[in-house]
Amino acid sequence: MTARTELRSWVESANGHSEFSLANLPLGIFSRDGGQPRGGVAVGDCIFDLSVACEAGLFEGQAAEAAKAASASSLNAFFDLGAPARQALRQALQNLLAENGERREQLQRMGESLLQPMDRCRMHLPARVGDYTDFYVGIHHANNVGKLFRPDNPLLPNYKYVPIGYHGRASTVDVSGATVRRPNGQTLPAGASEPSFGPSKRLDYELELGIWIGQGNARGESIPIGEAGGHVAGFCLLNDWSARDLQAWEYQPLGPFLSKSFATSVSPWVVMPEALEPFRCAQPARPEGDPQPLPYLYDEKDQQQGALDIELEVLLLTQAMRDKGLPAQRITLSSTRNMYWTVAQMVAHHSVNGCSLQPGDLFGSGTLSGERDDSCGSLLEITQGGKRALELPGGETRTFLEDGDEIILKARCRREGYPPIGFGECRGRILPAAS
Amino acid sequence: MTARTELRSWVESANGHSEFSLANLPLGIFSRDGGQPRGGVAVGDCIFDLSVACEAGLFEGQAAEAAKAASASSLNAFFDLGAPARQALRQALQNLLAENGERREQLQRMGESLLQPMDRCRMHLPARVGDYTDFYVGIHHANNVGKLFRPDNPLLPNYKYVPIGYHGRASTVDVSGATVRRPNGQTLPAGASEPSFGPSKRLDYELELGIWIGQGNARGESIPIGEAGGHVAGFCLLNDWSARDLQAWEYQPLGPFLSKSFATSVSPWVVMPEALEPFRCAQPARPEGDPQPLPYLYDEKDQQQGALDIELEVLLLTQAMRDKGLPAQRITLSSTRNMYWTVAQMVAHHSVNGCSLQPGDLFGSGTLSGERDDSCGSLLEITQGGKRALELPGGETRTFLEDGDEIILKARCRREGYPPIGFGECRGRILPAAS
Repeated sequence: MTARTELRSWVESANGHSEFSLANLPLGIFSRDGGQPRGGVAVGDCIFDLSVACEAGLFEGQAAEAAKAASASSLNAFFDLGAPARQALRQALQNLLAENGERREQLQRMGESLLQPMDRCRMHLPARVGDYTDFYVGIHHANNVGKLFRPDNPLLPNYKYVPIGYHGRASTVDVSGATVRRPNGQTLPAGASEPSFGPSKRLDYELELGIWIGQGNARGESIPIGEAGGHVAGFCLLNDWSARDLQAWEYQPLGPFLSKSFATSVSPWVVMPEALEPFRCAQPARPEGDPQPLPYLYDEKDQQQGALDIELEVLLLTQAMRDKGLPAQRITLSSTRNMYWTVAQMVAHHSVNGCSLQPGDLFGSGTLSGERDDSCGSLLEITQGGKRALELPGGETRTFLEDGDEIILKARCRREGYPPIGFGECRGRILPAAS
Repeated sequence: MTARTELRSWVESANGHSEFSLANLPLGIFSRDGGQPRGGVAVGDCIFDLSVACEAGLFEGQAAEAAKAASASSLNAFFDLGAPARQALRQALQNLLAENGERREQLQRMGESLLQPMDRCRMHLPARVGDYTDFYVGIHHANNVGKLFRPDNPLLPNYKYVPIGYHGRASTVDVSGATVRRPNGQTLPAGASEPSFGPSKRLDYELELGIWIGQGNARGESIPIGEAGGHVAGFCLLNDWSARDLQAWEYQPLGPFLSKSFATSVSPWVVMPEALEPFRCAQPARPEGDPQPLPYLYDEKDQQQGALDIELEVLLLTQAMRDKGLPAQRITLSSTRNMYWTVAQMVAHHSVNGCSLQPGDLFGSGTLSGERDDSCGSLLEITQGGKRALELPGGETRTFLEDGDEIILKARCRREGYPPIGFGECRGRILPAAS
């Protein structure tokens, strides 16, 4: 695969350690100065404006078709084009932006009209979310949460057979930077026999990988695991904000509802599967001796290369830290290596009953905690259900999130001999509950 | 309110005992001869074509705006206009179609171009479903199902405080008449320690009231219970097809997923809230002595008139019955009086955490079983978990649905002195599982 030296760009900020090098080229929807949202590509500290590029005739053939679809106000139509069109666009972008690209001078003359400064742009949700499904494939999270309720038997009997998931709320998926209002709701205070109503007191984040679905399947048909990867349009970071006290009271017998549906945040850039190819690996989270996946979830290539090696981190910035000029504090360092099921297994499972997936559907992986204390993907785990406070710079502590707290998710792929791939950020700040 | 004699129509089939009299006038999306789907109104055995009516200039003012929105290929934009526009359209339609309507002769001359024969038309999903939420407000269903697992304590402690619900799958909501392919999936056979994979052996229906959401709310804001009714665009029948064996194995800890997401069927006609006004009643399913609803779920008017008195029935037609020319057999007779929570309470609860509802969102009430053996809204209840076979005409029996079985839901409102209101049908036939 493409080594770093082959991928230098005439866009200087895309070289070196940029998370948006030519090896990455994620797509997103941006606007500037209140203009129309439209598709663009992250290149160093700029956004390559696909509308402008299309109008200038920079693309040909399948790449032109893909660029036109991706230049719209959402990426749904682009997602629907599938992998060959996406790959053609990626190749064309690498050619245009390469240090020795043939059209370099023409492009450089176009200046800021083609390459918008990222810090002057506003990012939008990359696609209209049809359905949003949240999985539960982080095995250490399932273990950690299970232990809080069932210390001797934390994993339920179905866990190692079924990629557990549930339907989430699509209307409240929003892009990084959107604030999150603390939800009101019913809770059962400790020792009480009747519920109370008010703002959640146990507001939490969940560190997840987001998966954007590309081409769908017809209702009544399933997607075989060997073809499942071809239905994935790209990846992002996802924060599944969770009100633990609402969840504990409401979730029996039908699962989480209002404890999750108030907000889900995603990072704005859709990282293409092709950018992640060098960071594929065998499933590290399935120990020897665990049951073999059922045939519809088993594919030899997926077993060998279906997992992902992406470093994930969570940072917290409180209002007091902000006031004192302190930087955000890293509170979690984890990895997608903690996924017990691969993305292909999630796609195959979701559709095996004939459920139709559609371009722009969004999956969350479930919370991706590691095995160590500093790799927990939620405050519920870090604080062991609120019993052990997390210490922060400036003398503050946290058990759950307070108003003004901001959670920042980041992700990066690193491998010797390959340029790094970054995901950008998924940020969200907590606002006080509505009165 | 409008007594029967005031509402005779020059469309003769709308008079007498028609379920689509001038007191009803439900909206839907239809097409004919492969043409473009468009909005229409059920009148007797005809569909009043709103596009043709708009072009002919039959509406004025707010009614014209509403008719134009409702004449599109989905009702989402019409739903977004809210109650006053809907009421203006309803009034205008009643004036146009009344026996003594001023423009009767003009309309009659338009003939079939304005009034399409219903049996020549195909119905479509009335709106693009943004999010679909399934509630669990049928208290006798919750009791019946709870008894199968917890004979001494069937209702969970949250039931009488929380209108329990969960997110369903929007992409597989389809209109009456669409076939339903038996889902494949994982099940844990009795006595086994490892799951099997194959077609569901315990396929079931669930009799529900469907609720179409009209105007939405912004994320972070809630809908007060006193205003909740104004956010409801209309009602339909809903069949929440369920694979009980998949459900039993997958549902811990996050609720139903593939056991439900393969299909949900709705009846095509959206019955307006105004048509149901005479059939409002006090909450019959909340016994004296039960806890008072929390303030955000309590509204005096809703307590007095927020419930609905709609008769519901389920019919089953098997392939053998079809072959012998036998009619569909009624297997359930129930009522919306079995709802423990009102529709307004469902809307207020759903949005109390700031979750945004949008025009075209769909709610299911949850299975509406009565207290009697012949009023169970699912085969799970009728057969007590498959233990007691249901006897059918022609000597057949059923515990769960077999391939070729068709389930037909119907609903009707009846009250002395008022014309009846019908919902039409919600039909679905089971196809064999994909191989």
